Amino acid sequence: MAIIVQKYGGTSVGSLSRIEAVAANIIKTRQQGHQVVVVLSAMSGETNRLLDMAYALDKQPSNRELDMLLATGEQTSIALLAIALIQRGYSAVSLLAHQIGILTDNHFGRARIKSIDNKRLLQSLEQEQIVIVAGFQGVDIEKNITTLGRGGSDTSAVAIAVTLGASECQIFTDVDGIYTADPRVVPTAKKLDCISFDEMLVMASLGAKVLHNRSVEYAMQHNLPIRVLSSFSSGNGTQVVNQNNEEWLMKRQNISSVVHQQQEVMININKITSNIEIAAIFSTLAKESIEVDMINQSFYSAQDEDAAQLICLSFTIHKRDQHKVTTLLEKVTQTHPLLEINLVENIAKLSVIGVGVTSQVGLVFSTLAQKNITISLISSSEIQISVIINEIDLIEGLTALHNAFNLTLLT
Amino acid sequence: MAIIVQKYGGTSVGSLSRIEAVAANIIKTRQQGHQVVVVLSAMSGETNRLLDMAYALDKQPSNRELDMLLATGEQTSIALLAIALIQRGYSAVSLLAHQIGILTDNHFGRARIKSIDNKRLLQSLEQEQIVIVAGFQGVDIEKNITTLGRGGSDTSAVAIAVTLGASECQIFTDVDGIYTADPRVVPTAKKLDCISFDEMLVMASLGAKVLHNRSVEYAMQHNLPIRVLSSFSSGNGTQVVNQNNEEWLMKRQNISSVVHQQQEVMININKITSNIEIAAIFSTLAKESIEVDMINQSFYSAQDEDAAQLICLSFTIHKRDQHKVTTLLEKVTQTHPLLEINLVENIAKLSVIGVGVTSQVGLVFSTLAQKNITISLISSSEIQISVIINEIDLIEGLTALHNAFNLTLLT
Repeated sequence: MAIIVQKYGGTSVGSLSRIEAVAANIIKTRQQGHQVVVVLSAMSGETNRLLDMAYALDKQPSNRELDMLLATGEQTSIALLAIALIQRGYSAVSLLAHQIGILTDNHFGRARIKSIDNKRLLQSLEQEQIVIVAGFQGVDIEKNITTLGRGGSDTSAVAIAVTLGASECQIFTDVDGIYTADPRVVPTAKKLDCISFDEMLVMASLGAKVLHNRSVEYAMQHNLPIRVLSSFSSGNGTQVVNQNNEEWLMKRQNISSVVHQQQEVMININKITSNIEIAAIFSTLAKESIEVDMINQSFYSAQDEDAAQLICLSFTIHKRDQHKVTTLLEKVTQTHPLLEINLVENIAKLSVIGVGVTSQVGLVFSTLAQKNITISLISSSEIQISVIINEIDLIEGLTALHNAFNLTLLT
Repeated sequence: MAIIVQKYGGTSVGSLSRIEAVAANIIKTRQQGHQVVVVLSAMSGETNRLLDMAYALDKQPSNRELDMLLATGEQTSIALLAIALIQRGYSAVSLLAHQIGILTDNHFGRARIKSIDNKRLLQSLEQEQIVIVAGFQGVDIEKNITTLGRGGSDTSAVAIAVTLGASECQIFTDVDGIYTADPRVVPTAKKLDCISFDEMLVMASLGAKVLHNRSVEYAMQHNLPIRVLSSFSSGNGTQVVNQNNEEWLMKRQNISSVVHQQQEVMININKITSNIEIAAIFSTLAKESIEVDMINQSFYSAQDEDAAQLICLSFTIHKRDQHKVTTLLEKVTQTHPLLEINLVENIAKLSVIGVGVTSQVGLVFSTLAQKNITISLISSSEIQISVIINEIDLIEGLTALHNAFNLTLLT
């Protein structure tokens, strides 16, 4: 009899009938002989309802009080699920952060879990109760309520699973697993049975919203298998495991997926004469916490000047920062008037992910070249190659790479 | 600099604009140089919204989980009020039962406060914070969340005021004080400046919903003055104090108010031959927890039988129990077939309340007799005389008594 931790997100518990469906799902796991600990998010829409009230009172509400307010969302959903399970004849108990000592630091709105006291959890499991824990929240050393920020309930679930020595942490969401590409864009994409934590981390950093980075890092650190499943349909989902996991070693593919992203803007800066100018540019952006990615620089000779080498710098930023960055760079040109700055919109990023990717750079280039798709920027790491192309070429490029790496669903 | 505890009910914090009005009211008290501790109810409508969800999942939801669910209502309102106060430049902190150790027994839904740890409260007051406490809730020894039942937030406020040695507990509600009669029925009724706990307790037991009995009892026990005020208008409200309070001794009136109630039904049972039959009747009702009031019994001689004395028994019950009682009494007549049972609807109860009432029974009778109003039943205690009359005579009788005891507003 294993302990299984199941986490259900906001859309999974978004209505009373969804809560009843989740109750049925939990009972199924229970009937397979497992001890079940459930971690819930707030019902979808609830967090926004609470935030709207707070922002109507204050455009910058107190972080401590915002956490006090938002924590009611999970408290509501855990109580309702417990009521639904008890109605079905099962013994269930809902528990809050302070009741099971989920101790965090005091960074309201983005707190980190320091420890969990598993006494009450184990005691409830011994009493054959289905334990339902409020995700997303903790308490600091002074008993103030804290919240864990984006994806916090995933982190709660993984941390509780680690504390209890659970055999698996199941993340129920509205997709049925991790795919080789976004199936809405590439219809032949197939669901992966198993991927590694490293691959998952890269995917998350590239905008795959299925799992939050912090929860994946925590699971990797403690070698706790995660499984991503749908709460709307049955299936085995996708397991996320360490690279030394036997199942992964058996099933591993050199390339696991091709991910795309359309949330970036490219900046090209020409006529840079020294590293001092580059430092000025990046330190200006850093002061405003602007994240830059895909940094490339190249040297070229100015035709009309003897021997002077100029630098061309390119990088990408997130679309949301576009206006801010334009303003900041205008300020830089006031002290460095010769710089030529261009902003390129309508670009897309394609990323090929997998442990064997470093030996496959050639295939990426040749595949896109065959389709006459121009690569504007390139960056790579141990398990990832990313390229910037024109947005108009996105679907063709994505599909071509997906085919080239044999990720297509066998029919 | 005194500590003042202010409690605001559901309608007082029923919307964001009401919460802003409450914030302004608190700031006014603060600017008078007082330390303020605020106790809040849930926003009006919120408790019903939560109950509707619970009952949709289970007609008899788990009491523990219901308390977990309902406690979110107060948590939401305290966080919002703290946000509104901080926005106005004041230091404020919202606190839950577990954070200030409001320890209760474990009778979910009707828990009683055992103790409050005032350390955190005093610490926050020392830091010049406006302290905002969630009313209605506590935690049991195992950290389970409990709720205190009807009027629970009043009890929270009084208990916190006692713990902190506050100078006064102000109960803000939607009426501006305690009146000599219901001003909707008797337009000349006037607001009382001061009444005694005993009078307040009788009024509460007679259905005045301004304050809950338990909170009044607790305040009386600890000699803590309560003040009932409106959060919708200014004014000094009504103070509720001990009978040895100087202000009360100065302002006391022999009769403080005339209260009416229309929620009762009268039962008359004739041809009772022995006390055994009476015992059978009341024990049948007691088994079903039916409350009976205004019990009267009288003896009469049956005309057609020699020397046999019969008993006539009358009492009142609450309208909500009418159907149940009819069924129960029908069962009694199966074993006591001679009993004649009549149920009288459309009655009203008038109660004259005050420390001098016992010497005024004559005035009650003569006043009603002058108006040709028949008294069906009468009961009295140290500070109260109640009579049952026909409902049709209610306004005339109430107004006549109100005039007879000189309670009318001086114009």
